[in-house]
Amino acid sequence: MNILVAIDSFKGSMTSEVANQHVQDAFCDHNVITFPIADGGEGTVLAFTQLLTGELITETITGPTGELIDASYGWVEKDKLAIIEVAEGAGITKVDPSLLDPRHHTSYGVGEQIIAALNKGAQEIIIGLGGSATVDGGMGLLQALGVKFFDQQGMEMTMLPVRLADIGRIDQVNIDPRVNSVKLTIASDVSNPLLGSNGACYVFGPQKGLAIEQLNSYEAGMRHFAQLVNTVTGIAMQNEPGAGAAGGIGFALYAFLNTSFQSGFSLLADKGELASLIKQVDLVITGEGKFDQQSLSGKVPIGISRLAKAYDKPTIVFTGKADNGLTALPEENILAVIPIVDEAIPLTEAIKNGPQLLKRAADRTLRLIMCGISLNKY
Amino acid sequence: MNILVAIDSFKGSMTSEVANQHVQDAFCDHNVITFPIADGGEGTVLAFTQLLTGELITETITGPTGELIDASYGWVEKDKLAIIEVAEGAGITKVDPSLLDPRHHTSYGVGEQIIAALNKGAQEIIIGLGGSATVDGGMGLLQALGVKFFDQQGMEMTMLPVRLADIGRIDQVNIDPRVNSVKLTIASDVSNPLLGSNGACYVFGPQKGLAIEQLNSYEAGMRHFAQLVNTVTGIAMQNEPGAGAAGGIGFALYAFLNTSFQSGFSLLADKGELASLIKQVDLVITGEGKFDQQSLSGKVPIGISRLAKAYDKPTIVFTGKADNGLTALPEENILAVIPIVDEAIPLTEAIKNGPQLLKRAADRTLRLIMCGISLNKY
Repeated sequence: MNILVAIDSFKGSMTSEVANQHVQDAFCDHNVITFPIADGGEGTVLAFTQLLTGELITETITGPTGELIDASYGWVEKDKLAIIEVAEGAGITKVDPSLLDPRHHTSYGVGEQIIAALNKGAQEIIIGLGGSATVDGGMGLLQALGVKFFDQQGMEMTMLPVRLADIGRIDQVNIDPRVNSVKLTIASDVSNPLLGSNGACYVFGPQKGLAIEQLNSYEAGMRHFAQLVNTVTGIAMQNEPGAGAAGGIGFALYAFLNTSFQSGFSLLADKGELASLIKQVDLVITGEGKFDQQSLSGKVPIGISRLAKAYDKPTIVFTGKADNGLTALPEENILAVIPIVDEAIPLTEAIKNGPQLLKRAADRTLRLIMCGISLNKY
Repeated sequence: MNILVAIDSFKGSMTSEVANQHVQDAFCDHNVITFPIADGGEGTVLAFTQLLTGELITETITGPTGELIDASYGWVEKDKLAIIEVAEGAGITKVDPSLLDPRHHTSYGVGEQIIAALNKGAQEIIIGLGGSATVDGGMGLLQALGVKFFDQQGMEMTMLPVRLADIGRIDQVNIDPRVNSVKLTIASDVSNPLLGSNGACYVFGPQKGLAIEQLNSYEAGMRHFAQLVNTVTGIAMQNEPGAGAAGGIGFALYAFLNTSFQSGFSLLADKGELASLIKQVDLVITGEGKFDQQSLSGKVPIGISRLAKAYDKPTIVFTGKADNGLTALPEENILAVIPIVDEAIPLTEAIKNGPQLLKRAADRTLRLIMCGISLNKY
């Protein structure tokens, strides 16, 4: 049997790569194609690099706290394509949780990675927005690209601390000219605007360490920043899809670079020619940690099952928990939803043992399908 | 598809009947034959009565504590067959757990049920030994049949309290003569002898309320009882299979009646012509609460899968917990072991929701088998 395995990460338990590998191990007697999944957050570089057989390039850059860190981006030589994820250059996982405070975290390193990619000869950059520690509107990133920010007193501003409300003037004269010719695509599953109740501050600020009582003033600073940017560029990009992703990095990219937006999954599906892979197999396997109402509104498994529907390929979803005991969604081409937990255990144990649980669930699943195949002999 | 469903009880969660019913509900688009399972314990009467389309007959008898209770036995008119279970007439569930004490529990009511069945015209009696509160060696049962016990002072002994060590003489002159002509079969999964470290007192006494320090004297009383019985009958049945079942009721039956022994499952399989049913179906479904090493040494699911193997019918096992994450046992004709738990939950919740979990697991299973059947089209 030919099987495509494209499972999203089980958050906190296993990455897409690990999940795919364990299902492939269970299906070892069959011809399995694995397809890594990423949503723009952590793992995006790895997924694209694996899919497009690229390489990882590690550079020393400025981390979110201002300290130097080693960070990698993906490089696909034949396409002159670089893949960057903000989870790497401005990642929340790079900051000690007790020290999380967006006023002291910059996206500068992400700008440095863009420069590094341009130096490498990049003609196209995919940038995954997700998992950043920053809420700097992309100001740090722009500084790395050569944009200068001056305060009300005319002093050039440093990247840290983040003082959006204090910006008096923006000068884009020294921006790296190559940013105009490179094609940049945001990969993100977050399509929030920059400002307002659905924006970067109010929605994502609290999980990045902003206290509730700081949100209004932070939002005011962000609005001031956006107004100045719009004046300089002559365009208003704060409502573009994903402008509010990664603490406003989306907005900065829209404002100064040749930027378009695509969901992480659909970009991967395009670049990796997922549809043509699905066409070649008998069965499609996908999954995610929790399969619920949100899944139905377009997360990875549904995206895949809809693609598979076009070619009439049955799709099976593995999950840690199916909402309301859902066992199938035939109208979405999902023949069966298979929970991986196989006995009464605490959630922490299920999360810890995710890969083994998934492998066993895949083994059971395959055995039942093979049982069906053999039954058809009668 | 034609499917045979024969699932053992999930102890504490659901009976065999409930389990079978929930799987049948999930397989509602298919032709399902359900086959109830019992091991000689609680549910034996119901299983045989359902299988052989008999009826339940309720009589007022002496319960294990000496109080009158209503208890039912099964009756199959066409075969003049009665089915009795000691879980009904001497059942541990009939006694308040805090009052459990074998010195104050009698098997008298089981003897009354035998008399009732003989009055009904029984030519054959199946008696399920399992789930009794008693450790009276079947003395109460024998008293109900007409056997008289006298103490060392020559006084006729009452059924309670149980004073095995005090018996001076046994008189079987008045035993109901019909017990000699009726064919009696013990249905039990317990093949322990009456005496010794594997016997009725040491193995089953503690769970019936005997304190550890009482065991030696209780065993001595039981040995004394057995010696007197053997003297009266001229035979020594204390080592027959199941002589130690139900607190020694097995021994009493062997000693005074025309008794043979069969495991509860194999007797059901014979009487219900399980093999010929298996022959007619495409798929066999079985299961039990916990599928472990004990299962492999001959519990119900393995018994069924081995029967199914003779006709090359694939067998699937549902379980609450599969030992060591076992997913299949192809050498035992078990194609897949399907755990019913479908998310990280406490055991108490899994036990409480057993029927719903089983139904969902059956639904998933069927969907995967149907997926396999449809894949074979390619």
